[in-house]
Amino acid sequence: MNVRPVAIDAMGGDHAPSATVEGACRAVRDGLPVLLVGDEAVLRPLIPRGIEVPILHAPETVGMAESPSGAVRSRPDCSVRVAARAVHEDRASALVSFGNTGALMAASLMELGRLDGVERPAVITALPRSDGGQLVLLDLGANVDCKPSHLGQFGVMGSVFARDVLQVAEPRVGLLSNGHEEGKGNEQVRAALPVLESMPIHFIGPVEPHDALHGGCEVVVCDGFVGNVMLKSLEAAIGVAGTVLREEIAGRPGAAIGIKLLQGALQAYRSRTSATAIGGAFLVGVNGTVLVGHGAADATAVHSGVRRAHAAAEERVTAHIGAAISEALCPSIPNDT
Amino acid sequence: MNVRPVAIDAMGGDHAPSATVEGACRAVRDGLPVLLVGDEAVLRPLIPRGIEVPILHAPETVGMAESPSGAVRSRPDCSVRVAARAVHEDRASALVSFGNTGALMAASLMELGRLDGVERPAVITALPRSDGGQLVLLDLGANVDCKPSHLGQFGVMGSVFARDVLQVAEPRVGLLSNGHEEGKGNEQVRAALPVLESMPIHFIGPVEPHDALHGGCEVVVCDGFVGNVMLKSLEAAIGVAGTVLREEIAGRPGAAIGIKLLQGALQAYRSRTSATAIGGAFLVGVNGTVLVGHGAADATAVHSGVRRAHAAAEERVTAHIGAAISEALCPSIPNDT
Repeated sequence: MNVRPVAIDAMGGDHAPSATVEGACRAVRDGLPVLLVGDEAVLRPLIPRGIEVPILHAPETVGMAESPSGAVRSRPDCSVRVAARAVHEDRASALVSFGNTGALMAASLMELGRLDGVERPAVITALPRSDGGQLVLLDLGANVDCKPSHLGQFGVMGSVFARDVLQVAEPRVGLLSNGHEEGKGNEQVRAALPVLESMPIHFIGPVEPHDALHGGCEVVVCDGFVGNVMLKSLEAAIGVAGTVLREEIAGRPGAAIGIKLLQGALQAYRSRTSATAIGGAFLVGVNGTVLVGHGAADATAVHSGVRRAHAAAEERVTAHIGAAISEALCPSIPNDT
Repeated sequence: MNVRPVAIDAMGGDHAPSATVEGACRAVRDGLPVLLVGDEAVLRPLIPRGIEVPILHAPETVGMAESPSGAVRSRPDCSVRVAARAVHEDRASALVSFGNTGALMAASLMELGRLDGVERPAVITALPRSDGGQLVLLDLGANVDCKPSHLGQFGVMGSVFARDVLQVAEPRVGLLSNGHEEGKGNEQVRAALPVLESMPIHFIGPVEPHDALHGGCEVVVCDGFVGNVMLKSLEAAIGVAGTVLREEIAGRPGAAIGIKLLQGALQAYRSRTSATAIGGAFLVGVNGTVLVGHGAADATAVHSGVRRAHAAAEERVTAHIGAAISEALCPSIPNDT
């Protein structure tokens, strides 16, 4: 069987195109098929001799300062849109971009479209829980104002993602709230609860960040505004904790030796909690596999993004989400029609 | 001058009344005037000989499992309401409670009322920033659905709090959002921006959690749902980080010695980042000084809560918030009328 490559938007990201090209080369050496999408004249010279990396030429790019959806709309041949088109035309298995998230969203909607029945695509990721498991969180910013039906669909998409990507048999899904007691939650939470209860998922009700991160569930659903604030708060807290710890260690006698002895543990800690370790997020609900990479991605992050996108395409997450959404919309129609 | 005592709701909290009484005794030894409010027959035997702690008898209590506002409404002589009444009648300078936050809210509204012009009281706290400063965050859960005018008033109350309590001359106030770029933010953020811009504060626009926690501003305003999720996410992240670090340290050769050498630094780190270190929050916008303590408070936390409430009462934070809200509502009326 001819394995389709992962299309990389080679022009997107703070360190593009050098990081995207280097990451692509590492992926190729790793046996992963890739397709670099971008300006061939820029990309070709960056590829070292002795390695074959196919390029799909895209003459235009989207800058970080532009209105992303406007720029993507007016430039059909910008790299992110050409890469999305390659997925739509089945010439690539997945799209990976480290550029502007809004541009990636717009390009995915224009070229791939939404899965049947999906009202809003969502950005999804998995975070480390304290019990060693992982917590799937969505939406992380694609939809800052959500209706109850959107949150219901996020529950279905998150559940499939946890099952396919994290291999959790029956993922517990919670709705992010400020408390699990009766009467807690805002208007949105109270309106979304019955919708989530009606979905064909293992819905456990409202959950607080603390309970979710300590193993209370596998999936947390929320609107993109709250999800984005939660994700960024978690990242910021880890950053603040690191800064405070470094300050307290500096200038304490013996502490420098202590740190040397803890080097291995600290490195393992960092690799489990850093944003790059968490890697990218996925855009779910569009008709194709789309990885939303971190803008600050280096070659290592690009390589790992390609690996994750390839695996998600192999797992057929998108097809499974499509089937689950159909089932959630029409639960009474038998499968054998 | 006769210094009024801090009224302690002695019956509220996971470890009440032993923790509240012990904390009160420590406060008295520390020279702080306190007034224990609760069932005298229960409290009196807990006070050691040789120390004078006045008791204001309140025969009823509010349980954690009850509907807080209903319970407080139907029991005029419950401890939290009697304590609030003591503040209203000027027999106490401030109210401190470690019981149900909803009950404390209800008791404060019933007995103290709102400051003139304040639409919604808010829960406020200060968090450690990575640059050594502190970040004032409100609302933390009193109002899960907010109008733009509420957020505007939170900006004014947060600014006064930062000035009086954190001694920041001209606090920078930000509105919590998922990005500071044009077009980011949800409907609520977009509607609140012009209101906050019109307030007599140093408003800097939308801020993300990361920027705020790394020193970008002194005050962050948001609705109580988002603020609660943000606060709990920060606490949870610190908890997860600690668990992961302990796991990585355990079972690594040499790490145990490393930890011994780092003991001082780790203790200082914990004291700067733990929830008990942060202490309680305040309820601002009501006509009196009210400290919302942590339910899990031990005697040390009770003692420090009393000290903070006493200091806030001395700083006359409530009076200053009242004046600032009046100014914000009628900015054109000269002061000399």
